[in-house]
Amino acid sequence: MITITVGLVTRGSKMSQNMIKVTYRLETAGEIEPLAAKIASDQSTGTFTELPNETAEVQARCAARVVEISHLDALDTSSFPDPEGVGRYRRADVTIAYPMDAVGTDIAALMTITVGGVFAVRGLTGVRVRDIDLPPEWACHPGPQFGITGSRHLMGVDQGPMIASIIKPSLGLLPEETAAVVKTLCEAGVDFIKDDEKLMSPAYSPLEERVKAIMPVIDAHQQKTGKKVMYAFGISSADPDTMMRNHDIVASYGGNAAVVNINSVGYGGMAFLRKRSQLCLHAHRNGWDILTRHPGLGMDFAAYQKIWRLLGVDQFQINGIAAKYWEPDESFVQSFEDVMTPIFSEDDRPLPVVCSGQWGGQAVETYRRTGQTLDLMYLGGGGIHGHPMGIAAGVRAVRQAWDCAAAGSELEDYAIDHPELAASLAKWG
Amino acid sequence: MITITVGLVTRGSKMSQNMIKVTYRLETAGEIEPLAAKIASDQSTGTFTELPNETAEVQARCAARVVEISHLDALDTSSFPDPEGVGRYRRADVTIAYPMDAVGTDIAALMTITVGGVFAVRGLTGVRVRDIDLPPEWACHPGPQFGITGSRHLMGVDQGPMIASIIKPSLGLLPEETAAVVKTLCEAGVDFIKDDEKLMSPAYSPLEERVKAIMPVIDAHQQKTGKKVMYAFGISSADPDTMMRNHDIVASYGGNAAVVNINSVGYGGMAFLRKRSQLCLHAHRNGWDILTRHPGLGMDFAAYQKIWRLLGVDQFQINGIAAKYWEPDESFVQSFEDVMTPIFSEDDRPLPVVCSGQWGGQAVETYRRTGQTLDLMYLGGGGIHGHPMGIAAGVRAVRQAWDCAAAGSELEDYAIDHPELAASLAKWG
Repeated sequence: MITITVGLVTRGSKMSQNMIKVTYRLETAGEIEPLAAKIASDQSTGTFTELPNETAEVQARCAARVVEISHLDALDTSSFPDPEGVGRYRRADVTIAYPMDAVGTDIAALMTITVGGVFAVRGLTGVRVRDIDLPPEWACHPGPQFGITGSRHLMGVDQGPMIASIIKPSLGLLPEETAAVVKTLCEAGVDFIKDDEKLMSPAYSPLEERVKAIMPVIDAHQQKTGKKVMYAFGISSADPDTMMRNHDIVASYGGNAAVVNINSVGYGGMAFLRKRSQLCLHAHRNGWDILTRHPGLGMDFAAYQKIWRLLGVDQFQINGIAAKYWEPDESFVQSFEDVMTPIFSEDDRPLPVVCSGQWGGQAVETYRRTGQTLDLMYLGGGGIHGHPMGIAAGVRAVRQAWDCAAAGSELEDYAIDHPELAASLAKWG
Repeated sequence: MITITVGLVTRGSKMSQNMIKVTYRLETAGEIEPLAAKIASDQSTGTFTELPNETAEVQARCAARVVEISHLDALDTSSFPDPEGVGRYRRADVTIAYPMDAVGTDIAALMTITVGGVFAVRGLTGVRVRDIDLPPEWACHPGPQFGITGSRHLMGVDQGPMIASIIKPSLGLLPEETAAVVKTLCEAGVDFIKDDEKLMSPAYSPLEERVKAIMPVIDAHQQKTGKKVMYAFGISSADPDTMMRNHDIVASYGGNAAVVNINSVGYGGMAFLRKRSQLCLHAHRNGWDILTRHPGLGMDFAAYQKIWRLLGVDQFQINGIAAKYWEPDESFVQSFEDVMTPIFSEDDRPLPVVCSGQWGGQAVETYRRTGQTLDLMYLGGGGIHGHPMGIAAGVRAVRQAWDCAAAGSELEDYAIDHPELAASLAKWG
């Protein structure tokens, strides 16, 4: 990898202002340098033909500049299909600096100027946004209201992982059927329960009916045991007014959390909700795969998660080791590190939610590969509901697996005198 | 192409309710049929392991079903890279029907259930949402407030294409400098002017300052000529409250239009704005390319544009013939047909905005390939500002090109006694 730092001072530039630095992985059958320069021009003051008004003063205010190019190995196959087939395809990580004067602190401006338009540029055979480096002015965004500390406080879990489950089947249960599952899960000893992300307010289980059926179960469990299990209700709506009404329903019955499908409500929905929210916001990133699954295209989680954290995500689902979905383990491990890295302060870190196909068997590897932290929620769906000895045993098995991880033991050894874990290993191991 | 219609009546199904039908282009190194069935299960009631509660009743309420499979030619190269390289890669267009009981009419539910999760499924080497067929209940969404008819009325253009331009350079002009460009464009005879999509409310040109500088120019031109040029101000913000304040600023100074970067404000932002808006909403789809540029991945415009039309887009930018961006001409032609096809009624059609690298030279081909309609806005930026005889000549050249198209003539012939068009042809032809 050869890194070239491009001279920062260009014609008419005014470098006293802070810059937003965006790093892209570019891929092209042509040359990287002119392509990078074209992107910087297109995304600020330029167009396809010379203009008399594009003066030095105009450029000084707004022109974006290429500040670093790190060349990578070329590819034989292009990321976007290249019918002309003239490869090989050169690649580089290119950092472009955008003046704060041109972008400001609005997320819509950031995404429009530094992300959206770049994907339309001709001559690219691939482009992926790798990271977005934001200057201190961006600390103006609210960030998480609860985050890791607040989530622990609300769940009453001072230390150790927060053990969580989800209602299964994910869709189709009536409110009273759902409440019965909640009762079982509370008695089984979970810290957190959530609606499936696909459950919002369908005809057979309208949100208010579901809240009215579930919250008395949560309250009765608290009366009996002193423990308030956190239940995250699916309040998402593409209409922010509806989402706020949903929020208010949950809050009015004493609920303290909500599942938000961040991509399906959009930046506007999330921004609107966060300003008015008293609930802990559990983000499901359903749809994120569209943006990230092709490694040469779209966006890295490092960039994506920053925006949603600034918008106020308290708990962030990030898959796990051996997820049921396509995501490779190393991508999950990187995501965990991403959300645990402060943007502007420790408080802007959401609680990482390890999920998807989890049954406890992944606890030891998760612990080892994520810096041996227990600041996480570990969410099992089928891996708890499908336990051969029942749901309570499923929860015990998961707790045993995490005790094992924290003790530095191996699951097979630990299972010898922990029959629930042994049963999980026998079924899924 | 072999089409198989799968039996609609499955175990416990209740087919009396309306269904949402989504067509996906699936690609896999494995078999299409089990993959399609897995998607239908994962996106409704299933998970990775058997569950005791997934009863026939639950499935009847919510289970999605594969209703049609049309096999296509296999590919040698996968869309997502396939490190195991076991292709060829089978492809099919697969239609899955989702019960309205499970989804309802909320766009967040639709996107979460029928789109988002599908991209996470293992075993796919490619997936693209081709179309979304919505039942009549979905006519509850507001749709465009102005659309084609309202846009014509506001601009005072009863017939023929609406000729439009954009402020250039796109970024960097101060409000008074922008107003000077507006004056020139008004005098040059355009029907519509817009801020560049990258211009919202930056420090050097705050929205209110820009509105205060520009609207008197629009008003003075109307006083003098009787014609109110439509100016679309960039009001986008990721914060719906801010966007509404921006909307109100424009309206309070007598403006009647706004540019909305739909992907950068999200469904929530657009839904919130539309309910309260008195402005004609000109949609820029900046960022759309991320979802559509790879032909085997993401989404077709046919599906995407429906959602934004239901949310209330009045004018929709869709590129043009020989765009400056990557998009092929046939994709633009299809997009034009998409937006001109009613979803539930003629009134839910937005005004198509033909743009990107347009200078008039594409008018004849555009007219021929889009059903010989003049119900469109034709937007020239550099192609008007960069005209060798000046901006007024640039606008005249574009009008001449469209007169030529409507007359069924060829540009070269028409240019003989139309010097402005001749100059455009000499520069860009």
